Amino acid sequence: MTPAEFRRTVRAGRFRASTAGLCGDFAQANLVVLPHAVSSDFLRFCALNPKACPLLAVGEPGQWALPALGAGIDVRSDLPGYYLYRNGELAQELPSLAEVWQDDLVAFAIGCSFSFEQMLLRAGIALRHVAQHKNVAMYRSQIPNKAAGPFGGQLVVSMRPFRAADAIRAIQISSRFPAVHGAPVHFGDPALIGIGDLQRPDYGDAVEVLPDETPVFWACGVTPQEAIRSARLPLAIAHKPGHMLITDIPNERLAVF
Amino acid sequence: MTPAEFRRTVRAGRFRASTAGLCGDFAQANLVVLPHAVSSDFLRFCALNPKACPLLAVGEPGQWALPALGAGIDVRSDLPGYYLYRNGELAQELPSLAEVWQDDLVAFAIGCSFSFEQMLLRAGIALRHVAQHKNVAMYRSQIPNKAAGPFGGQLVVSMRPFRAADAIRAIQISSRFPAVHGAPVHFGDPALIGIGDLQRPDYGDAVEVLPDETPVFWACGVTPQEAIRSARLPLAIAHKPGHMLITDIPNERLAVF
Repeated sequence: MTPAEFRRTVRAGRFRASTAGLCGDFAQANLVVLPHAVSSDFLRFCALNPKACPLLAVGEPGQWALPALGAGIDVRSDLPGYYLYRNGELAQELPSLAEVWQDDLVAFAIGCSFSFEQMLLRAGIALRHVAQHKNVAMYRSQIPNKAAGPFGGQLVVSMRPFRAADAIRAIQISSRFPAVHGAPVHFGDPALIGIGDLQRPDYGDAVEVLPDETPVFWACGVTPQEAIRSARLPLAIAHKPGHMLITDIPNERLAVF
Repeated sequence: MTPAEFRRTVRAGRFRASTAGLCGDFAQANLVVLPHAVSSDFLRFCALNPKACPLLAVGEPGQWALPALGAGIDVRSDLPGYYLYRNGELAQELPSLAEVWQDDLVAFAIGCSFSFEQMLLRAGIALRHVAQHKNVAMYRSQIPNKAAGPFGGQLVVSMRPFRAADAIRAIQISSRFPAVHGAPVHFGDPALIGIGDLQRPDYGDAVEVLPDETPVFWACGVTPQEAIRSARLPLAIAHKPGHMLITDIPNERLAVF
C-alpha cells in the first residue's frame, strides 16, 4: 500500500491503530494543531528543542493541507487517531477533526522515530515492540524542555532495548537522521533522567528489557503534547501517540550523510 | 613539539613514558615486528580483525623505515618502549631494538585510539585517564579473534568511562575514524564480554567508573600482542602498551566523513 492509499483507508475510517511498521519506506509524522495566536511561540519552542521537535512542515493558517509532505493530505482525517486538549487536559479522543476544525488553526508536522526504526530493521536490528505488534514505550522524563511563551514541560522519550553492539549500531544509524530525532539522548539507568519504572510507560506499551540489554532513549515527538499540557491553552490538538501521519517522503531522503 | 622532534627526543633516550595526549593532532601507532616468514599470515590476521588491527603502514622486509607515516622514522628507536616476546612469552622490555634487529624483520603500524581521543577532547568530552596522567585501561576480553595461520587469541579492549550523553557523542565521533578502531565494540556490563574486574586491567592503569557512568570498550591495538602470545613464535616484537609511535599523519586526515 502506498502512503496515499493508506491515507485514503484511514480517511474512510477503516484503520484506527498504531502506524508502527506501516509503509516502512516513508516518513511518518507527529501532528500538532494550534491556534494561530500561539503559533509563533510554538515555532520558537521547536527551534529551541530540535531533538524532540524537528519540524518537517507547517501548514498555512486555517489550511488542513501539508503539500510539502504529500499531495492531497488532509490533517483533519488522515491520521488514525487524535487527542483534543482543553486547558491543558486531554478532553477527548477523536477519530477525525472534521467537527472541531477552526479557521484559525495551524498544523505542524514533526519528525517521528518510526523513520529510523525502518533503517534499524533493514540493518538487521530487531525491534521488540515491532516484533510484538505493540506501540513503542514512551516516558515523561525529568529533562526540562527549553520554554517559549506558554510552552514548556518535560522531554518525552521513546525507549527501545538493545544489546550493546546493536545499541552502538543504532546510535550510528539514527545519527544520520536528525529530522526524525537523530541520536539517542540517553541509555542505561532510567532513573538518571527521572524515569521510575520502565514497565509503566506514560504513553504506548511496555516491553521487556532482557538482562543482557540496555534501554536506549530517544527524544520523542510526543514532547509537544507535554508542552501543550503545560501551556493550558483553551484548545490544542495532537495525534494520538503512535497513530501518525504517513507522508510521501522517503525516509532515505531525510539522511544527512 | 612536532612529531619529528618528539621522535628525536625518544631516539636520544630522553623520553620513556606513555605517549597518551602527546602531539595530540597527530596519529599514534601500535607497532608489531615479525619475521618475514609469518608476515603473510599476520596481514591476513589484520584483514580478518579490522576493528582491532587497522593497518596504517607495513615496512619493507628488513627495513626499519615507515615512510608513509613520516620522513626518517626508525621503528628500532622512535618508540619509548618495546616488548620482546620469545615463544609467546614476554621475555624482555627494551628501550630500543638496535641490539635485536634482524634482516628478516617486517614492521607493521596499526592505528591507535589516542587519535580519536584527541577528537573527543576537542568536543569537550573529558577523558579520566588523560586528566589523571595515566595510561588507558586495557583488558583481555573473551571475544575470540578470527584466526589466521598461528595468530589467534582474544580481543583486547581499551575502556573509557562516560556518562550516557558523552558516550553517545563518543560513539558518533569515533565512528568517523575506522583507521583507529572506529566505534566501540561494547558498553555496559563488562562480564558480557568476559571481563571480571574493571579495577584489574591486563594492560595500562585502572580508572574509577562513577555511579552515573558506563564503561565503554573499544577494540585495541594491543590485540596483536595476544595474537603473538597465541602464535608462540621464537621471536616477536611489539611496542610497550601505551608507548606508541607518533607519526606525521594529522588525525583529521583519517576521518571518513
